[in-house]
Amino acid sequence: MSEVVKKAKAARETTAALNMLTTGQKNEALTLIADALLAAEERLLAANEEDIVRGREQGTSESLLDRLKLTPERLQGIAQGVREVVELPDPVGETLQQFERPNGLRIEQRRVPLGVIGMIYEARPNVTVDAASLCLKTGNAVVLRGGSAALSSNRAIVAVMREALSRSALPEDALQLIEDSDRKSVDEMLKLNGLLDVIIPRGGASLIRNVVQNATVPVIETGAGICHTYADESADYGMLEAIALNAKVQRPSVCNSMETLLLHESFAAGHLAALADKFTQAGVALKGCEASRRTVPTLAPATDEDFATEYNDYILNVKVVKDVDEALAHIRRFGTQHSECIVTENAANAERFLQEVDAAAVYHNASTRFTDGFEFGFGAEIGISTQKLHARGPMGLPALTSTKYRIAGSGQIRA
Amino acid sequence: MSEVVKKAKAARETTAALNMLTTGQKNEALTLIADALLAAEERLLAANEEDIVRGREQGTSESLLDRLKLTPERLQGIAQGVREVVELPDPVGETLQQFERPNGLRIEQRRVPLGVIGMIYEARPNVTVDAASLCLKTGNAVVLRGGSAALSSNRAIVAVMREALSRSALPEDALQLIEDSDRKSVDEMLKLNGLLDVIIPRGGASLIRNVVQNATVPVIETGAGICHTYADESADYGMLEAIALNAKVQRPSVCNSMETLLLHESFAAGHLAALADKFTQAGVALKGCEASRRTVPTLAPATDEDFATEYNDYILNVKVVKDVDEALAHIRRFGTQHSECIVTENAANAERFLQEVDAAAVYHNASTRFTDGFEFGFGAEIGISTQKLHARGPMGLPALTSTKYRIAGSGQIRA
Repeated sequence: MSEVVKKAKAARETTAALNMLTTGQKNEALTLIADALLAAEERLLAANEEDIVRGREQGTSESLLDRLKLTPERLQGIAQGVREVVELPDPVGETLQQFERPNGLRIEQRRVPLGVIGMIYEARPNVTVDAASLCLKTGNAVVLRGGSAALSSNRAIVAVMREALSRSALPEDALQLIEDSDRKSVDEMLKLNGLLDVIIPRGGASLIRNVVQNATVPVIETGAGICHTYADESADYGMLEAIALNAKVQRPSVCNSMETLLLHESFAAGHLAALADKFTQAGVALKGCEASRRTVPTLAPATDEDFATEYNDYILNVKVVKDVDEALAHIRRFGTQHSECIVTENAANAERFLQEVDAAAVYHNASTRFTDGFEFGFGAEIGISTQKLHARGPMGLPALTSTKYRIAGSGQIRA
Repeated sequence: MSEVVKKAKAARETTAALNMLTTGQKNEALTLIADALLAAEERLLAANEEDIVRGREQGTSESLLDRLKLTPERLQGIAQGVREVVELPDPVGETLQQFERPNGLRIEQRRVPLGVIGMIYEARPNVTVDAASLCLKTGNAVVLRGGSAALSSNRAIVAVMREALSRSALPEDALQLIEDSDRKSVDEMLKLNGLLDVIIPRGGASLIRNVVQNATVPVIETGAGICHTYADESADYGMLEAIALNAKVQRPSVCNSMETLLLHESFAAGHLAALADKFTQAGVALKGCEASRRTVPTLAPATDEDFATEYNDYILNVKVVKDVDEALAHIRRFGTQHSECIVTENAANAERFLQEVDAAAVYHNASTRFTDGFEFGFGAEIGISTQKLHARGPMGLPALTSTKYRIAGSGQIRA
């Protein structure tokens, strides 16, 4: 039996016990984990140092090594994150519907854990703790498969967390780490129907594509964002400038940042030149459609390929459109159904945009950068779902639950 | 461009218009469809006759031909089914959450259509109308891929429905039928990420397995049910007998019927012989574990393979267990997380069973045959989901929706 199957089975066997836990028991276990991580500072930093040394030998870039590195401060932040999960309300056990049928059957739909969650992710060791604590808070077992660059760190972190679980009401086998860093261990997880209930990939585009293309286990897809901001004819210039700059430059590397700015032709006539200056001053390289290049000839030409690219960088496409219809058509063609924004003073156009655009989050007069579990007030974020089934947009704890119908009868049979 | 891609694209292009429809417009279109189906009786029965003749030539069994056959009465039933969908509340547009953030952003989560739904199903032509009307009611476009045995019927039905749509506010391209009966057209649908938002398979085990194993588009799995009834020590004999017989013989061919009866050893000692007589009288062939065969030596032996089989037939496994723990362990090992029942007068055992069993529907003192959208009062049933993501158990109209966050701001940007 492979490591993956053995550990997934061990995790699966804990699910009956996990179904019986109280919120208090789960919170106590998470508090033990937070304490244990701090108490193990020396051991965890030493293990992390092994990853850093190995990474440096293999020529890993300093920026990646920085993402990988644990420090006493970062460890404190990680432990604090676990304590914040303790404070979150527990969705498990919540009654979603309750009704009685004419035959007297009382039917209740309750939230229950998903079961066993497979997490496939890349290098940062904080994800190991973050994912584990969110899964355990919702009564799920979890099989973690992190990137090989963080293997020593992840091993030490999971060992410390499992030791903490062994002193709690939670079975330590609810938390499993796949140590086999061969790509085959990922492929194996993707096909483990019956042992894994869901796979959540977190990482770059190629990691997510591999999971979506090859998993037979249900997947919650997170990821790509080609987000637009549309300046309508009646947009307030000051508001548009602030929102567009924020959407592009406040953190260009993330999925909810803007890749293309759409401008109504009248708005562009009055403001494109000034806007282009602002973006250039902010260090953003601009590419424009033909019409925008007639107004600002210094723009590089933007191709369809550019409009279909998630730059995650200081690059922005600009396109002039003749009305809201053309803006909507462009978004339909190039958007990835993540986050889209209209800036307008026209209520009818705003309503139409909010209604017609097919995306997880649609904004009127606010930056797309708000698409985030913490900004939405969920207190946690498993990721931002870009699919339409199960969960869409920022995912809080309820996204890690399923439901169960409990039916109470008094001998009813079907006629 | 293949037929599948062409039709899926045409369906996709209607989704923006579908997002803008009112409930009244959708209901009007469905009423036109119901009227049109009745008005086209002659044409539809003639097309159906082609399928029947072809089926008979190909040696199709009379029972399958009967499922395939349309009659004036059946057509009336189908049209009546559409009118019942008109009467159902429209989940689209429902506000699921609404809250304001400290920065003044007003965030609303609303139900929206899924987009384009791919339905892959087998022979009965009523499914064509049923699936189409449920999808259209929820503002979805739908690409239907029925079985080749019903192709003439499905062609005529879809033509009539599209003609009705052309007289409504709904674009007729929202309804598509794949006529290519080669298996490759199914394989093509399974990979149409970006054009199809979800695939729902309806049919036998091999159809569903193919979809789950090969789809990269998200799937809502429906299907297998190995359901148990557990008679606890304190079960009322009369109640248990009625529930168990109902769960087995009221309609053995369906997924929520019972395959294995678990009996507490004390209960079995008093009642197994009488129960075995009752089942035998009802035409059920019994297989039993060793302990049950000591009590009733005429039982055939039941193997692990039997316990893992969904008979969908007049066959029942019987197993004696020493307590609720052993019953739970058996269900964990052999159950398919569909519907499970405990018959007991012991409230603590009932609560433990309801809490610990991991299944879509868990019953105390009622037949598992109630796991059904109509029996639950949903007024419709797209199927019974046996997966944990998105929807679990009987699926009503809300299972055909996704959600969207609408965010209203006044120039907010992220700090």
